[in-house]
Amino acid sequence: VSVERESLLIERGEQPAGVPARLAAQLGFLLECDRLKTVLRRNPLVAQDRRENDAEHSWHLALMAVVLAEYAEPAVDVGRVVELVLVHDLVEIYAGDTWIHDPVATAGQAEREQRAAERLFPLLPADQARRLRERWDEFEARRTPEARFAKALDRLQPLLLNYNAGGGTWHNPGVTLDGVRARTSIIDDGAPQLWAYAERLLAAAVAHGQLPG
Amino acid sequence: VSVERESLLIERGEQPAGVPARLAAQLGFLLECDRLKTVLRRNPLVAQDRRENDAEHSWHLALMAVVLAEYAEPAVDVGRVVELVLVHDLVEIYAGDTWIHDPVATAGQAEREQRAAERLFPLLPADQARRLRERWDEFEARRTPEARFAKALDRLQPLLLNYNAGGGTWHNPGVTLDGVRARTSIIDDGAPQLWAYAERLLAAAVAHGQLPG
Repeated sequence: VSVERESLLIERGEQPAGVPARLAAQLGFLLECDRLKTVLRRNPLVAQDRRENDAEHSWHLALMAVVLAEYAEPAVDVGRVVELVLVHDLVEIYAGDTWIHDPVATAGQAEREQRAAERLFPLLPADQARRLRERWDEFEARRTPEARFAKALDRLQPLLLNYNAGGGTWHNPGVTLDGVRARTSIIDDGAPQLWAYAERLLAAAVAHGQLPG
Repeated sequence: VSVERESLLIERGEQPAGVPARLAAQLGFLLECDRLKTVLRRNPLVAQDRRENDAEHSWHLALMAVVLAEYAEPAVDVGRVVELVLVHDLVEIYAGDTWIHDPVATAGQAEREQRAAERLFPLLPADQARRLRERWDEFEARRTPEARFAKALDRLQPLLLNYNAGGGTWHNPGVTLDGVRARTSIIDDGAPQLWAYAERLLAAAVAHGQLPG
């Protein structure tokens, strides 16, 4: 669904008068980000029988960054990792979630997300628009140890949820161990010990019939 | 709902063998935290007609901390604020959300949350259990500038959502401007400029008939 012609959430009602322009812009951005809570991912929760949304996923990654930071190789600035994961999915507000195992959807993903970034980040004052855009680019390009660790967590988290929800998205047609391994082995670039764990988890998933071997 | 006799999420299925004990404990905690996504708050989203959950709320606060840090007085360590808001509601996994305007529920809140903390944080290795427990205590006691700013965001965010959702929880019986002001004026302790904004927002809410004046 394209929302490019839709109004911003902040434009739906009359806003308080006399608010400084910089603060008003920041609040407009933060309110627009409420939409991330409505973007559904493919993987399920474990605690409840429903799909996860991007805001929940982003929070979970941030908490994982705090708890699992010791597994980053090389060592990382945890605060920066947290900032990367907080913003890493924001463009999906307009671009939607793209399932990693869907070749048709992944084909147009880069262009969709670029256009989304050009709409979303400029809602902020210029200095912050630049900064958050840079964080998103850093994450996508996996240019830094922080970005590689953040991406590792982004790949590990759905494995943890799928496995503990009885298989989750692995039951979809065409998903195989080789396919999942190919798309998650970049965990190894940011956190080799977490990749060793992921390999054990995938082997267990195959053994339990959750994932075709 | 008490889950003290319920099993942990990590205990529901067989886990991969050969995982180091420290990592297994960390993953058990992180999986248990999936439950935060099922704890509903009273306030609505703006982007969709449903109530917000604690994980979405925590993510939104963390993003607000990054974008609004410049309004903290005195200046704060943003990374620490983010860590505080990521963990500030975790005890609600077992204690449930307590609506700030419900005097009966708030009466038993402290004890419920203490028991929840004693169940949740010790799932982590001892050093991390201590650290996250300290973060939660710091937030609750508003002992530091970071905690006072985090608490300010925690009070501001539902104002922003209620206002832009047409009033939200302000339409509940017994809610008045004076009551809302009394429970949100601590925004002033951490971020005076954001409190000035909140006052404008509350005045506009009264003017628009969202909140009894």
